[in-house]
Amino acid sequence: MSDPDRLSARERIWGEDAAAIEAKLVEADPDLAGLILRVAYGEVFERPQLDLRTRELLAVALLTALGAERELPTHLRGALRCGASVAEVRETIVQVAMFAGFPRALAAMRVLARHLGDAEDADPAG
Amino acid sequence: MSDPDRLSARERIWGEDAAAIEAKLVEADPDLAGLILRVAYGEVFERPQLDLRTRELLAVALLTALGAERELPTHLRGALRCGASVAEVRETIVQVAMFAGFPRALAAMRVLARHLGDAEDADPAG
Amino acid sequence: MSDPDRLSARERIWGEDAAAIEAKLVEADPDLAGLILRVAYGEVFERPQLDLRTRELLAVALLTALGAERELPTHLRGALRCGASVAEVRETIVQVAMFAGFPRALAAMRVLARHLGDAEDADPAG
Amino acid sequence: MSDPDRLSARERIWGEDAAAIEAKLVEADPDLAGLILRVAYGEVFERPQLDLRTRELLAVALLTALGAERELPTHLRGALRCGASVAEVRETIVQVAMFAGFPRALAAMRVLARHLGDAEDADPAG
Amino acid sequence: MSDPDRLSARERIWGEDAAAIEAKLVEADPDLAGLILRVAYGEVFERPQLDLRTRELLAVALLTALGAERELPTHLRGALRCGASVAEVRETIVQVAMFAGFPRALAAMRVLARHLGDAEDADPAG
Amino acid sequence: MSDPDRLSARERIWGEDAAAIEAKLVEADPDLAGLILRVAYGEVFERPQLDLRTRELLAVALLTALGAERELPTHLRGALRCGASVAEVRETIVQVAMFAGFPRALAAMRVLARHLGDAEDADPAG
Repeated sequence: MSDPDRLSARERIWGEDAAAIEAKLVEADPDLAGLILRVAYGEVFERPQLDLRTRELLAVALLTALGAERELPTHLRGALRCGASVAEVRETIVQVAMFAGFPRALAAMRVLARHLGDAEDADPAG
Repeated sequence: MSDPDRLSARERIWGEDAAAIEAKLVEADPDLAGLILRVAYGEVFERPQLDLRTRELLAVALLTALGAERELPTHLRGALRCGASVAEVRETIVQVAMFAGFPRALAAMRVLARHLGDAEDADPAG
Repeated sequence: MSDPDRLSARERIWGEDAAAIEAKLVEADPDLAGLILRVAYGEVFERPQLDLRTRELLAVALLTALGAERELPTHLRGALRCGASVAEVRETIVQVAMFAGFPRALAAMRVLARHLGDAEDADPAG
Repeated sequence: MSDPDRLSARERIWGEDAAAIEAKLVEADPDLAGLILRVAYGEVFERPQLDLRTRELLAVALLTALGAERELPTHLRGALRCGASVAEVRETIVQVAMFAGFPRALAAMRVLARHLGDAEDADPAG
Repeated sequence: MSDPDRLSARERIWGEDAAAIEAKLVEADPDLAGLILRVAYGEVFERPQLDLRTRELLAVALLTALGAERELPTHLRGALRCGASVAEVRETIVQVAMFAGFPRALAAMRVLARHLGDAEDADPAG
Repeated sequence: MSDPDRLSARERIWGEDAAAIEAKLVEADPDLAGLILRVAYGEVFERPQLDLRTRELLAVALLTALGAERELPTHLRGALRCGASVAEVRETIVQVAMFAGFPRALAAMRVLARHLGDAEDADPAG
């Protein structure tokens, strides 16, 4: 197996979904995809000042506050892949309720519950 | 029939959907559901400073301004259950257009139209 | 004294500040001022589907949710002029905290506290 | 063929979708539809200070920043009908990423890609 | 005089304020300043798909919709420097009112009026 | 000195500003202050699922995304008090730029720079 410390931020966040997420980004718009890959993932997320687990909890909080429900699954999975527990992701969303109100937090929890349900369905041992 | 003044704010807002709404809240996340039930419904909505009809019009306006389309149906129905007319709910959304622009108001009207259409479909006398 | 039912929505909301508010609107931009006066005040706020007290509580809630602190004083005063009590205005802002989070509600309460303090300062019997 | 300079802003933006869009607006709410048709399209969009191509790029940018994904298709098509190229619409959305972040821009690009795909599917020569 | 076509997007937008704006950006945070200078100004704003006048009107619209009143002056001036007239900038803000409501548009008009007033004060021939 | 593990979340976040912050909250509105103290600080921030350093970085990110510049200083200081470095707080704000755009991030950096400047001014050894 590959050394996780050698993986890029993007590889660690996207895991086995990497090819599918990148293909969809490029399909949406190659120029915007380029900026997201190069600036957000390739530069900001690679900076050492914050660890990826913290960065992914921040991403979950920000997408929850924005109400960006379709972008949430990538970073809900990313947070779990980077070492956050389901309880930490849930608590991050609970905290958003204090800063951005209950409706945004509830919408994010529904996305998370759907994702966890799908993950169980996909896993016969789930 | 039960005395409406004895019912909790939550019972009056949720009406016959109460069991379904509560089950879905808990399914999304038990901790967040607890805060919503205890703080928002059990405490703030129970305070006597505003009547429930006004509170539900405020809820419709705020969810419209947030663009929280999936959370809207609960409070569109809640406003009607708490004594607001369809015309008052529509006018609340029209007023939001002045403060938060036409797109948010239009999106909320579409949710309302769908809800009223469904209600008619479900009601053979509709 | 003039019959309050004969007054326009704008006159009832703006009260003795009417000339100052209108002058400032026109100074900011005559075209935008025209739209606000004609469409928001002259048309939407004049529609009979909602009373002005409810409309002004909706305005307070929406401006609080938007974080529009400089536009708030006009409608905080307007709500009080149209028959809402200070307790109702405060409770409206408390309810916003549930839908849009504590920071927006707190910022609005600070604007309200400042306004009420100024009003007391201006009133030797306050 | 009719003289494009004689067409209303609304006819130029909505093109062959005009009847369908207007019917849907009225179906959502006749009063709100009236305001949108009369004030937004009939007055603001008719003012000569900005050409319609610029106005539609502004509309795309604003709907992208709001995350108003269901309202976007009308103005994505409108921008193209009013003389903007696909490259200009894409670039407008890329610029929004700088001011409102990548998630909003990405969501809008997905709506655009879907629209362009549908347009190709509908056009045997596409 | 230097050839305007040889100037960078940043030089054309910032004009004689360039040194002051850059110093303030770096003072706020060198890393963030680096991203803004390199990605927003050095890359996105340099792309040929949109002219700078259109980009600056988009910037004014987006900052108005965000309520980012302190960031507005840079792009109000930038729009004027890149060839937009005061009437076009005003009309851009009027259009924002349709998409994001009157309060945001009004706040931006106040910033613009203040800027234009200051410009007159600074110009003995104003 | 007191054992930091015995301190409440609120005491650790507010530090020596505790009395001043609480007095200002109550002055703004006693009921809202009660909810913030009891629910946000007394309940959510006390939950063990996330450490206070992570919670305060989330708070900084959320207030930055909301543009809540007046509420930011409390949590900028809180993050530093709970063990985050200045570099981590800065990086949190840089990450917000990716999710909510450069203007919000820049505004937050200006608040932070002002706070750090004030702290230096207050500290003769700064």
